[in-house]
Amino acid sequence: MIRLFVRDDLEAGMAVTPTREQSHYLGHVMRVNVGDRLRLFNGRDGEWEARVETVGKRDMTLLAEMRTRTQTVGPDLDLLVALVKRTRMDVIAEKAAELGARRLRPVITERSIADRTNVERLTAIAIEAAEQCLRVEFPRVLEPERLERVLANWDSGRRLMFCDEAGDAPPAAEALAAAGGTSWALLIGPEGGFTPAERARIREMPNAVPVSLGPRILRADTAAISALTLWQATLGDWRSGE
Amino acid sequence: MIRLFVRDDLEAGMAVTPTREQSHYLGHVMRVNVGDRLRLFNGRDGEWEARVETVGKRDMTLLAEMRTRTQTVGPDLDLLVALVKRTRMDVIAEKAAELGARRLRPVITERSIADRTNVERLTAIAIEAAEQCLRVEFPRVLEPERLERVLANWDSGRRLMFCDEAGDAPPAAEALAAAGGTSWALLIGPEGGFTPAERARIREMPNAVPVSLGPRILRADTAAISALTLWQATLGDWRSGE
Repeated sequence: MIRLFVRDDLEAGMAVTPTREQSHYLGHVMRVNVGDRLRLFNGRDGEWEARVETVGKRDMTLLAEMRTRTQTVGPDLDLLVALVKRTRMDVIAEKAAELGARRLRPVITERSIADRTNVERLTAIAIEAAEQCLRVEFPRVLEPERLERVLANWDSGRRLMFCDEAGDAPPAAEALAAAGGTSWALLIGPEGGFTPAERARIREMPNAVPVSLGPRILRADTAAISALTLWQATLGDWRSGE
Repeated sequence: MIRLFVRDDLEAGMAVTPTREQSHYLGHVMRVNVGDRLRLFNGRDGEWEARVETVGKRDMTLLAEMRTRTQTVGPDLDLLVALVKRTRMDVIAEKAAELGARRLRPVITERSIADRTNVERLTAIAIEAAEQCLRVEFPRVLEPERLERVLANWDSGRRLMFCDEAGDAPPAAEALAAAGGTSWALLIGPEGGFTPAERARIREMPNAVPVSLGPRILRADTAAISALTLWQATLGDWRSGE
């Protein structure tokens, strides 16, 4: 079943106009016709079954008919990741959606190779991944911010899983289980790691939980996926009964 | 420090000739000169510090001087993955190396989109990842085999973590901890999943340990990374004292 993210509100009988790109995809790639059914979500109103109402040359109309899933909100989990090169940022946006992060916050560190990123492109990637992995919500991608500013404005109720390559931190699964709690952020460094000063600054944070991700050096995208996985398995919605 | 995988034996005083591509990389990209030092490994003799002995237009000679790490063998962990499209297979080969799998075995399933893959390319990707993540060994990539043949010849001492999308399996971390053991394989299905007949056949295996990887549908590469991560954290070398 085709699933599409739309901007419009969704309620019974509501007409929805997909974007030009979506209409092209539906009409010319998937070859849908009047009367065909698909699923829609907008991140606010759950998931709806919709019927194709009209098909034009360049656009089409869909009619929302029945809610198939209520809106849910995933765990309160932010992924903070130092800006890395574009292809790896793209992977991270996709995986943040698949693995249930609520927000993706790019951070600028001393060894980051860039100080900006295309937030719209990353958002589009996260939405496409959410369409495919059956989520009814998707990670919000924030504008990049400098690490020191992020730490200076830190929310005192949010724990910070610090993936520390320096090696003396306890294994991530153990450290997370010991720390507990429900509001978290995971912090992944750039290729080349944090500087000693950054590392000291992060470890000073009262909410910091330094963790190790094993004996091998991981690329930033791998570290992000492993950290999200261990968080979901230990404190998130991958546990029994969640 | 530059790290290179070489085919030659490594011992003190042994001259090593990098491939043309490696010589080009060293000479023209990294601009090394006579006397510069780098690290070498071949998957058999540990890691060695070597000195650049001669630099020619197209090739160069390195001299192994001192062993810097002994050869280690990682956990006895195979990654079995249904053939998926090329870009995702490439990612899986890279991540198998970073996350410490010993062998990568592509398997052909009913819904696989291909029945072959480029084993040499995947091997080269795994070696490059091992160079960067400081491993002294790297995953062997096997020729693709049909799933039924793989299961028919199954080693009775090896447990099989079956990542089952159908949803009634217990969470992976719990199932792995309960199963224990040291020889394992992780089995990841194709996009679209296993057929009901394949799923029944896998679940019949006496060594099968069906597990769930959370409530969202994961792409094959994400599932592979998450499964490797949870295995390493629960039974492998990411634990305390390993």
